[in-house]
Amino acid sequence: MSENDLITPVILSGGSGTRLWPLSTDDHPKQFLNLTGPLSMFQLTFERCQQSDLFDLPLIVGGKKHAKLAEEQLKEIGSSVQAHILEPCARNTAPAIALAALACKNPQSLMLVMPSDHVIKDVQAFQQAVRQSQSLAKARWLVTFGIEPQRAETGYGYIQQGEPVIGSANSFAAQRFVEKPNRDNAENMLAEGGYYWNAGIFLFRADAYLNALEAHAPEMLEAAKRAMDKADHDDLRIMPHEESFASAPSDSIDYAIMEKAEKVAVTPVDPGWSDVGSWDSLFEITPPDDQSNVTFGNVIAMESHNNLVHSDGLEITTFGVDDLIIIATGNQVVVLPRGQSQNVRKIVSERNKTV
Amino acid sequence: MSENDLITPVILSGGSGTRLWPLSTDDHPKQFLNLTGPLSMFQLTFERCQQSDLFDLPLIVGGKKHAKLAEEQLKEIGSSVQAHILEPCARNTAPAIALAALACKNPQSLMLVMPSDHVIKDVQAFQQAVRQSQSLAKARWLVTFGIEPQRAETGYGYIQQGEPVIGSANSFAAQRFVEKPNRDNAENMLAEGGYYWNAGIFLFRADAYLNALEAHAPEMLEAAKRAMDKADHDDLRIMPHEESFASAPSDSIDYAIMEKAEKVAVTPVDPGWSDVGSWDSLFEITPPDDQSNVTFGNVIAMESHNNLVHSDGLEITTFGVDDLIIIATGNQVVVLPRGQSQNVRKIVSERNKTV
Repeated sequence: MSENDLITPVILSGGSGTRLWPLSTDDHPKQFLNLTGPLSMFQLTFERCQQSDLFDLPLIVGGKKHAKLAEEQLKEIGSSVQAHILEPCARNTAPAIALAALACKNPQSLMLVMPSDHVIKDVQAFQQAVRQSQSLAKARWLVTFGIEPQRAETGYGYIQQGEPVIGSANSFAAQRFVEKPNRDNAENMLAEGGYYWNAGIFLFRADAYLNALEAHAPEMLEAAKRAMDKADHDDLRIMPHEESFASAPSDSIDYAIMEKAEKVAVTPVDPGWSDVGSWDSLFEITPPDDQSNVTFGNVIAMESHNNLVHSDGLEITTFGVDDLIIIATGNQVVVLPRGQSQNVRKIVSERNKTV
Repeated sequence: MSENDLITPVILSGGSGTRLWPLSTDDHPKQFLNLTGPLSMFQLTFERCQQSDLFDLPLIVGGKKHAKLAEEQLKEIGSSVQAHILEPCARNTAPAIALAALACKNPQSLMLVMPSDHVIKDVQAFQQAVRQSQSLAKARWLVTFGIEPQRAETGYGYIQQGEPVIGSANSFAAQRFVEKPNRDNAENMLAEGGYYWNAGIFLFRADAYLNALEAHAPEMLEAAKRAMDKADHDDLRIMPHEESFASAPSDSIDYAIMEKAEKVAVTPVDPGWSDVGSWDSLFEITPPDDQSNVTFGNVIAMESHNNLVHSDGLEITTFGVDDLIIIATGNQVVVLPRGQSQNVRKIVSERNKTV
């Protein structure tokens, strides 16, 4: 493989989820938390694309506010980047990826676009799916990776597969993007088969993406171009022009491009993926102790079972309680039943009212 | 009533319960906590005996370790004392009360002995029972106050009433002291009637108590006398001689005296008494909010019911949980089901093992 064939990882770190409150906050969003081990999900995303025969140095696209935090976390794991693009304001994923595509030195570069707040347990399976999709992406397909669904999840979007793509190892034309379904539709899709979770991971040529933008979101492309033309540079940091970027319509890559473009493919993969989108999902992906508790930090669980107890400082003791989620950080403690963690947004908004 | 008829409150503050851990600790025992309102139970005990037509200045008998804390709390409420006797070591209630009896200027003084870690809601009813028992105590009876039992409680000792004492307003000879019963016996006593909870509150003449000690615990009396003879004095503080006091047998007034002495009476009273001996009992005596929660401190309870949530600093949020006890102090958080707070001792001993 020639150097030009190396894939540029594009790591999106602009998210600011509050579903893992009180640990994830505006100042310290989810991707920078180390919920599953010593490394944060942001750091794990870098570890996932360190193979020198496959990956070039990554591009980061993230929020200005978290630039320092991101760079400190990279320093901790000794990772370098091609560039760190600081979004001057949040415009969702399609414009963010446009900035990265415009930053690629070679327009034919393959970009592997990845959110930085997901967990992938089987990195080998993931990388294999990437390798299998390279030829397709080179042939100007916009490739998405479809996660084999584990259950009738209503919290994710789905991708329906169409015909196999001739000449591909194991990819299909993407027939349809399905928004977060209701329970019935989720169960029907699971029963029917051929539907995958949309994990927001993509592989495509920079120019193929820019062409698709030109066709389906020309204003967005223009705004991104102006923002990059007038960008400030500071060492590896690129600071796109704020006013220009702010004029880009705010839209996700799914809505703006994937649902509309022609050559969109899906490569199925089962890499032990989770978006760690809630405390319940953290419980599900973490191996429990012998009392079936998942604990982190200074926790003693006595005669307690099936609890998630996570503390980054406070001493938590439980006695005789089951099926609870207990999260403590700083001077905040939250207690709710397992299975209810989708209500954390509600809790945050209630908390904000009273503060 | 002449000045000599004033009752000397004797406030026992040497306890060091851990049943309200993590709030009550060796350094800050239960009596000094303000669990029921702005005042601590120690302070409330003083407020209970402020009537100048009935009470002289109180004597405190408490641990050396907590002398400063006790005095600060007295200063907060502007209370004065006759003397503050600092037990050089813990010898249970009988020797502690002996020190107080020996400190009374007039041997015929009536002493109202009260633990400082109980709650009494109806102070008027309590004081009335005290007034009604004065003549009996003057006639050298050792009067106990028996709390009308509210339920078949297995956590308290009981006093069985005998014949009415002739000439008393509403007092009975104490027929029998019953140790903490099992469930069956507690239910039988409740059904049978004539049994009262032993709250550890007593009224007697100082010389009557000292005579009873001479008869039933002469070594204890000797040790207490030596300790007071060789005591150091510092303003209102009395520091009994340690070695002498340490030689006193360690025993409760119930075992050492009340179960053995002749003229022991019980005056029934229903003053809304609680020993606040556990988190569950704190829940029971505190008026709940409109979601049936008892909360204290920085607490938000959403869609949660019948919980006790007590924080003296940390921000606690609950969502969708019922019937829990959640206690937070310093950097400690404890979560257990309501009805299980008798296990706090177990939790403390487990915690100590791991620290």
